[in-house]
Amino acid sequence: MQVNPDGLKRILIGRPFPTSASAHERLDKVRGLAIFASDPISSNAYATEAIMHVLIVLGSGALAMTMPIALGIAALIALVCTSYVQTIHHYPHGGGAYSVAKDNLGQHVALFAAAALMTDYVLTVSVSVAAGIRAITSAFPPLVELRLPLAIAAVLLIAWINLRGVRESGTVFAFPTYAFVAGVLVTILLGLSRMYGLFGLPPLDAHPVVLPASVAIDPWSLAYTWLLLRAFAAGCTALTGIEAISNGVTAFRKPEARNAATTMVWMAVIAMTLFIGISWLATHMALIPTDEGESILSQMTNGVSENLSGGRVLYFWVQAFTALILLLAANTGYQDFPRLGFFLARDGYMPRWMQNRGDRLVYSSGILLLTLIAVVVLVAFRAEEIRMLPLYAIGVMISFTLSQAGMVVLWGKVSRLKPGETLRTEVTTLHHERNVGWKRILNATGALVTGVVLVVITATKFLEGAWIIALLIPLFVWSFLAIHRHYGRVADMLSTNEREATLDSLTDVADVVIVPIPDVHRGTLRALKYAKKLSQNVRAVAIITDDDQQARILRRWARFPELTKDEEIHLINYDYRDIIDRLVEYIIEVSTEEYPNQLVTVVVPEFIPRNAIERLLHNQTANMLRRRLHAEPNIVVIDIHYHV
Amino acid sequence: MQVNPDGLKRILIGRPFPTSASAHERLDKVRGLAIFASDPISSNAYATEAIMHVLIVLGSGALAMTMPIALGIAALIALVCTSYVQTIHHYPHGGGAYSVAKDNLGQHVALFAAAALMTDYVLTVSVSVAAGIRAITSAFPPLVELRLPLAIAAVLLIAWINLRGVRESGTVFAFPTYAFVAGVLVTILLGLSRMYGLFGLPPLDAHPVVLPASVAIDPWSLAYTWLLLRAFAAGCTALTGIEAISNGVTAFRKPEARNAATTMVWMAVIAMTLFIGISWLATHMALIPTDEGESILSQMTNGVSENLSGGRVLYFWVQAFTALILLLAANTGYQDFPRLGFFLARDGYMPRWMQNRGDRLVYSSGILLLTLIAVVVLVAFRAEEIRMLPLYAIGVMISFTLSQAGMVVLWGKVSRLKPGETLRTEVTTLHHERNVGWKRILNATGALVTGVVLVVITATKFLEGAWIIALLIPLFVWSFLAIHRHYGRVADMLSTNEREATLDSLTDVADVVIVPIPDVHRGTLRALKYAKKLSQNVRAVAIITDDDQQARILRRWARFPELTKDEEIHLINYDYRDIIDRLVEYIIEVSTEEYPNQLVTVVVPEFIPRNAIERLLHNQTANMLRRRLHAEPNIVVIDIHYHV
Repeated sequence: MQVNPDGLKRILIGRPFPTSASAHERLDKVRGLAIFASDPISSNAYATEAIMHVLIVLGSGALAMTMPIALGIAALIALVCTSYVQTIHHYPHGGGAYSVAKDNLGQHVALFAAAALMTDYVLTVSVSVAAGIRAITSAFPPLVELRLPLAIAAVLLIAWINLRGVRESGTVFAFPTYAFVAGVLVTILLGLSRMYGLFGLPPLDAHPVVLPASVAIDPWSLAYTWLLLRAFAAGCTALTGIEAISNGVTAFRKPEARNAATTMVWMAVIAMTLFIGISWLATHMALIPTDEGESILSQMTNGVSENLSGGRVLYFWVQAFTALILLLAANTGYQDFPRLGFFLARDGYMPRWMQNRGDRLVYSSGILLLTLIAVVVLVAFRAEEIRMLPLYAIGVMISFTLSQAGMVVLWGKVSRLKPGETLRTEVTTLHHERNVGWKRILNATGALVTGVVLVVITATKFLEGAWIIALLIPLFVWSFLAIHRHYGRVADMLSTNEREATLDSLTDVADVVIVPIPDVHRGTLRALKYAKKLSQNVRAVAIITDDDQQARILRRWARFPELTKDEEIHLINYDYRDIIDRLVEYIIEVSTEEYPNQLVTVVVPEFIPRNAIERLLHNQTANMLRRRLHAEPNIVVIDIHYHV
Repeated sequence: MQVNPDGLKRILIGRPFPTSASAHERLDKVRGLAIFASDPISSNAYATEAIMHVLIVLGSGALAMTMPIALGIAALIALVCTSYVQTIHHYPHGGGAYSVAKDNLGQHVALFAAAALMTDYVLTVSVSVAAGIRAITSAFPPLVELRLPLAIAAVLLIAWINLRGVRESGTVFAFPTYAFVAGVLVTILLGLSRMYGLFGLPPLDAHPVVLPASVAIDPWSLAYTWLLLRAFAAGCTALTGIEAISNGVTAFRKPEARNAATTMVWMAVIAMTLFIGISWLATHMALIPTDEGESILSQMTNGVSENLSGGRVLYFWVQAFTALILLLAANTGYQDFPRLGFFLARDGYMPRWMQNRGDRLVYSSGILLLTLIAVVVLVAFRAEEIRMLPLYAIGVMISFTLSQAGMVVLWGKVSRLKPGETLRTEVTTLHHERNVGWKRILNATGALVTGVVLVVITATKFLEGAWIIALLIPLFVWSFLAIHRHYGRVADMLSTNEREATLDSLTDVADVVIVPIPDVHRGTLRALKYAKKLSQNVRAVAIITDDDQQARILRRWARFPELTKDEEIHLINYDYRDIIDRLVEYIIEVSTEEYPNQLVTVVVPEFIPRNAIERLLHNQTANMLRRRLHAEPNIVVIDIHYHV
């Protein structure tokens, strides 16, 4: 009747891997780009739309501002990537914002960066999956009602794959990224060609919809500037995931830092190209963003591939690989979150089990925790990615700012090194370098710009949802510190550093064993026999609620002098029904009055039924007793089982 | 942070009663009638309507058949009551169908009767509560949508009162029964007076509605007879609860049997009077039953009290006390079900905890079980009593038939007794009697008639829901027998009857103690110190997953020779992640290979966090280990707690 949970686990997760199998296959640049770039590149599926979504309140005319904003964001991508190339070279063992901030700005600032990243990793999963599902429902509109269950199913699927332990290097993972990039590039080039009537292609059907402004705003007013800032902030989701490579430098083939840096540059170039291309085409095709209906990318591909032989193939290619690259982007959350969780757990700021690897050598607890939170977020926002976007990008901007501020401090240390001198920090080794001034200015500019963007994002998106993140991040930091304090206390308590104090602290064992017996039968005799082995001073205790019971116990007791001769039997007459109450009272009395500050042992006979149904037929006295005595520090409960 | 469940229990249930407080206050006839008769008398709230509900398919003309059917049922009531008076005199210690059948027809038949009664007690609660709520919604129609939540709330209220332990004798309980009887009698008399223009009262407004037949049936056809049988079967719900007095003879003042018998007769007279009165008036006022709308009783009282000063008072009086007496009737289910559960548990046919009384000396488990099932039934039937009625009355008819068949057998024993001779059965004592033949014929007639009615009810209501009961009763009997077999097996296993076999069966205790240690700290040292008290042969076992851990453990181990000098430390290198697996494997290996058929002790250091949140921060290794070893018969797990 019993389900073997282990058997189920084997089927779901597969057989365990030996720990020694964890040596890593390294990534070349082609695959590295595909793996790490899926997150920032996939942002193109929604970043342009996010900008247009803000501008549209001023009517379709205002959509012309999409392009300048997109250029600004592209410039920001270039700046951040350049800054991160410097980080990669100085933190070849992984230079996530947490490590860099910890190394240069102190633990508290690092925790702040970690909290920010944690929120962003969760949103990477929720937003990417929601957008991926939207790519599917844009192509198959009847599925739109199933958005939430589909999104949850997708998260569970990704979680399951990760629990089984995928190697980051699977070539199969590289394909969707390149297929998406190729598909979108073809769409953009085809769109440009058709727009300008090149290559004899039919011109694009123009069906410009003119939407009036839903609010009237003077273009020279503060309100207008505010709106532009909001649109800019919305587009900043394009930057999420850029930092991923800096975390994963060690995943690359040698020379790791150099390969990672090159990949970073390529990633930036591709992301910027697609972003600018999509923004340009969407604006010039006069596309209109809709609330959770067909996405801008889908509208664009639809328009470009219209009236072309093979056009449908292109359309479904782009939609399919949009969905796939977005799911792949969600998967990067599954790489980053458990890894950061591991670092935090190792340093004592998250539950220690976050650093335990499962049977398949992955951080199973982190994966499960992320899945839980991501599903909660999806349900809360009904899997509508446009509603989640205001929460997104704050975390990543905080981590950009802090990581680059850390670099500024690092340059200070480097500038004090003479040629040939090295400085070993906790995480990395620094050498003398040239042009430190310029490099420092670059990171300072990066920190400053992303800092300003952070303020803009937080301010403009505050009421739309950013307040949630503004609330959560300090809460997380507070939790990290509380957890750290707890582990500190436990470590102090368990510490064996002072030999004598340790020995003194070990409680003595009282020479008494209490055996509660409801009756004298083979089960209780078995417990008595065990108890006699433990101590010469065994006390059988029976709570007597009626005379028949007392007579029966005494009669049977007398029949087994081998076991019962020397032992006392304590009969406690009790006029209430809850005998556990009385038993607990007696045991605590013995513990505190007769043997204070010693370990008192209670041997409890426990009947073990064969299955859950049989369990319903028996009192749970042993279980209840154990639970009741659980909180008593000086009482040891031993269950002596008897099976049918 | 932790809720004290005991504190909550105290608030809900009240302080415990001492067992010695269970001596019973005895009932006089007036209160005895009120308590025991509430169930059969309250049936008048729906029994007439149940008949009319069947007849109405033939149109309003067919309702004239209500009266003859009602007379037949009244005759049945008289017959059953007379039979039961004989049962009461021969089973003064309680003559429920279970006891009588067990004493005369054997255990298996008795279980059948018990199963039948169990289903009926559940339905007593569900049907009475549903009908009681309908009395309220008939007076306040807007509440009709809240029927189900109101019904559930009523069941929970009754359950709560019973868990607190009401004495059956509360005078306050007597009032609704008499108030209901008085109200209905006044209504009937007033109705008759107005119908015949007596006492200068205004004649009744006649607004006869003529409904056509929804099916055409020849009055001489078999189909017509079938319909009349169905109507008769429907009316038989009036008989439910009649047997209650026979169960509760001991609740009466001395002479118990005589007082109980007198009360039984009065109950029958009142029930018959009301039933015939309501049926007569409902037919002559040409009332039409509606599906779950206003009840017939409400229509009747409304009509009779119309255009009379004070008429509204009468109407609300009757409705209010209909609701109250029905809730009181539901309460009888709460008296009967746990009591029968106690008998069955005592004989080993239901879970043994059904015979345990709670703090307030009531059978709490039976009360909770009944509540659970009654709520499920209410939800399943959406608290519509008309839909539940087809399930009702089958159980009670089975118990009537079996109890009276038992009496027929009993008269056989009595007839063999010579004057002055007595016969002690398991439950009662029999003496020589006169006129045994006639008395036997009476019970035989009762058994025969109720047997026939049982067949009629089952057949006519089969498709409407009686099949559920026809399925459940054998299922219950089967469960009773399975439970009995299980307890028999356990009792054999625990039996100490054979001294030598018992002593041989007690497993020896192996002289070895295994202490799994993840690390050497105060917690594990505490466990080691305890283990040393148990045995000279202590084995500390560490599962080593990396070299640092091994070096750390050995270094710390060497620092405490007081505790560790003589003990072996077993280091087990393990290349997988799930160390519990390896630990369990090792322990089972030691148990089965080194010490087969002996009790091997495992001492597990367990960290006890201060609260649930702190628990999240720690591995549950000790818990998991205990769970994994739970099924091993020869392994004893001892948790040595360490608290912050």
